Amino acid sequence: MTELKNLDKIVNLCKGRGFVFPGSEIYGGFANTWDYGPVGNELKKNVKNAWWKRFVQESPNTYGVDAAILMNPRVWDASGHTQNFSDPLMDCKECKQRFRADNLIEDNSKGKVSAEAMTNEQMENYIAEHKVNCPNCGKFNWSNIRQFKLMFETSRGTVEGQKDVVYLRPETCQGEYVNFLNVQRTARAKVPFAIAQIGKSFRNEITPGNFLFRTIEFEQMELQMFCKEEESFKIYDDYKKQAREFLLNLGFKEEHLKYHDHEKLAHYAKAACDIFYKFPIGFSELNGIHHRSTWDLSRHSEFSGKAMQYVDPVTNEKFTPNVIEYSIGADRLTLAVLCEAYDEETLENGETRVVLHFHPALAPYKVAILPLQKNLGEKAREVYAKLSKEFMCDYDEAGSIGKRYRREDEIGTPFCVTIDFDTLNDNTVTIRDRDTMEQIRLPIDDLVDYVSTRIKF
Amino acid sequence: MTELKNLDKIVNLCKGRGFVFPGSEIYGGFANTWDYGPVGNELKKNVKNAWWKRFVQESPNTYGVDAAILMNPRVWDASGHTQNFSDPLMDCKECKQRFRADNLIEDNSKGKVSAEAMTNEQMENYIAEHKVNCPNCGKFNWSNIRQFKLMFETSRGTVEGQKDVVYLRPETCQGEYVNFLNVQRTARAKVPFAIAQIGKSFRNEITPGNFLFRTIEFEQMELQMFCKEEESFKIYDDYKKQAREFLLNLGFKEEHLKYHDHEKLAHYAKAACDIFYKFPIGFSELNGIHHRSTWDLSRHSEFSGKAMQYVDPVTNEKFTPNVIEYSIGADRLTLAVLCEAYDEETLENGETRVVLHFHPALAPYKVAILPLQKNLGEKAREVYAKLSKEFMCDYDEAGSIGKRYRREDEIGTPFCVTIDFDTLNDNTVTIRDRDTMEQIRLPIDDLVDYVSTRIKF
Repeated sequence: MTELKNLDKIVNLCKGRGFVFPGSEIYGGFANTWDYGPVGNELKKNVKNAWWKRFVQESPNTYGVDAAILMNPRVWDASGHTQNFSDPLMDCKECKQRFRADNLIEDNSKGKVSAEAMTNEQMENYIAEHKVNCPNCGKFNWSNIRQFKLMFETSRGTVEGQKDVVYLRPETCQGEYVNFLNVQRTARAKVPFAIAQIGKSFRNEITPGNFLFRTIEFEQMELQMFCKEEESFKIYDDYKKQAREFLLNLGFKEEHLKYHDHEKLAHYAKAACDIFYKFPIGFSELNGIHHRSTWDLSRHSEFSGKAMQYVDPVTNEKFTPNVIEYSIGADRLTLAVLCEAYDEETLENGETRVVLHFHPALAPYKVAILPLQKNLGEKAREVYAKLSKEFMCDYDEAGSIGKRYRREDEIGTPFCVTIDFDTLNDNTVTIRDRDTMEQIRLPIDDLVDYVSTRIKF
Repeated sequence: MTELKNLDKIVNLCKGRGFVFPGSEIYGGFANTWDYGPVGNELKKNVKNAWWKRFVQESPNTYGVDAAILMNPRVWDASGHTQNFSDPLMDCKECKQRFRADNLIEDNSKGKVSAEAMTNEQMENYIAEHKVNCPNCGKFNWSNIRQFKLMFETSRGTVEGQKDVVYLRPETCQGEYVNFLNVQRTARAKVPFAIAQIGKSFRNEITPGNFLFRTIEFEQMELQMFCKEEESFKIYDDYKKQAREFLLNLGFKEEHLKYHDHEKLAHYAKAACDIFYKFPIGFSELNGIHHRSTWDLSRHSEFSGKAMQYVDPVTNEKFTPNVIEYSIGADRLTLAVLCEAYDEETLENGETRVVLHFHPALAPYKVAILPLQKNLGEKAREVYAKLSKEFMCDYDEAGSIGKRYRREDEIGTPFCVTIDFDTLNDNTVTIRDRDTMEQIRLPIDDLVDYVSTRIKF
């Protein structure tokens, strides 16, 4: 059924059908940013809603927040970002382009050499010994490695002569940590409980992005569960399962997912596992589950002077909870959903149809309303008005009905409703299924129920 | 029924009940930022969803986008922001605090003098003549006025030695303008059509904020309708009506809203009108409807070299569309919704209940599940599991039932479901209405329908 999918096909479909455009495209684009178009925006929103439904709405002990992107700079001292969040960069003295030293090594060795554990000196030596040339101009004239800060820096200006540094947050989770006490108090939450958030983060990376896979501005969906140490590993295992289950529920194939336990752990971490998805660029990280011990809350206690502790309501025991983090990129998951849904099918007549087999809950439009002829427009708009009270709907009256079906297939619309002359007499319509291409006849009054029951997640 | 509401009461309720917390609070807060807590996050999401439903989902000729916050800097040259987007600031040489000159004048004159039309020189003279002292230290020792840029500035670092300036967008609408051609092409849209967006913007303002009313980071909901000149004024009038209608549908009282036509128009604008809401701080801007002529698309044509034009599919006429903008702040509307919903009612027993009369579609939780006693928890969790598949639900088993009702009133939960001993026998529950406080008995199986039909927007 499936041919080899490649990223270019997805990118082209995205640009051609209104999923994703290059950011600021009329100005030649801008540095690894992307704008979601009409259907891409709906797709990404649905991805976020599906995640929120599963992990917040249906979970009685998970509470959402939406914290500001601009945080007190002390937050990033406590998290370690002001000190440690940087990339080892080298400048080509010929063409002035800047590269990550570890990427130069990994690209040059075609992925055979990992620079993960190398020191800066070791990387410099490797690059000298193997004479790794500049990928841009082809010359060999490198500066030494310098650590380049990954946080975008800006400043407030409330006091004369004083530059108040402000960072764009490089991760959302600090918004949950700093609100641990606020949420616990106002929700009267008992451990184990989680705080969840969906929001934008920013990283000043120079890495090529592979479309939505890595961008300087991206949206994270993540939760931090606060718990006792003795229950922490069970919770960690639960999230590993739930995270995979969530992807399977969205229609991901088992063989396209795999667990990847981290070999190297941060000094405070007790366990860490990613789920990899088989992207067109190869198996790559889609989400992470991390056991972060008491590190985050302890650091914030230390830096803020506030005791980030939990008091057991029965025993009165006071302790710093352990944290299990589950985190997934909204843009990256949107890309994975697009890749997983993409298909080229050969029809009986020999033609190829491109179709996106989205889970109906994720599909940008749930229903397309298609008057068979233009003079059926009035009735069709009546149906549109009715259905659009319930779902995002498309309306299309241009071109042959076959062409219109193909267009809806390419944006993954699960149901097409055709208005024909019989509709005027008996108020029934044809409804076509995207995946089976089967058509049945239904009364207009049954449409909302018919669609509603089939798009649930 | 209503007492005088003041902003402090709202702020305190928000902090105490988990609507809104000061940003980075454990570090002493941060510069006019706010974090949405568990119920505030749901409220704001519902506000955004209601707007999107009305103006995008139900509108056949409106298309959504989600453009990047970081845009090519040329965008801000075209929009005029790099040149003109600044505030007239004065520094107190004694205490080093910085103030807006126009605010100094307006505050000093208790609002009787408007500085809107004054030049910098006129403002300096006014402040000297009236000896306006520093509101912080009380002394009189001002610097001259300097124009202070309102765009937050940061930089990319891809090329050595070169500082690539990047701005945090100060408004979202440029994301629609730059995608005008992309959206028109991929949606095959015909004028009049609109591009809508919800997203964050940032302004480096030093103004005191009045809670969520004015913040350095805020979320906008807005659309830009592209149309022919001859239909533009009708569309402008339509949005004025629709914008008001939307607020009335959400439960705003007519007498709390008023139109405010702009006296002074930007040189390119053909008309501009705000809707003011009666905030606790007085009637203030809630949203704007602006006739922007062909200004925005023309500027982008000029600066990008791309013809931002529309070709009539019938006549082949090529023209630059006029733009009608309708824009409303998501945070500001959330604040207005809180103010409008807030009430203190005297009960028959003389007690006061604080209740938020949200439109049910906006309420953070649609249903609270309350087991009458703890040993009914199993049945109650069963009901929770069922309902939370459909709605955001709260679960509360702590304290007397009366106390729990009060807590739900204070966060505006429209329905409370009580599980009692009869529930175990006959699978019925008591459901209580937030506004009337009336209770009826219902089968558990009817709950989803009962609630669904009452929370529609």
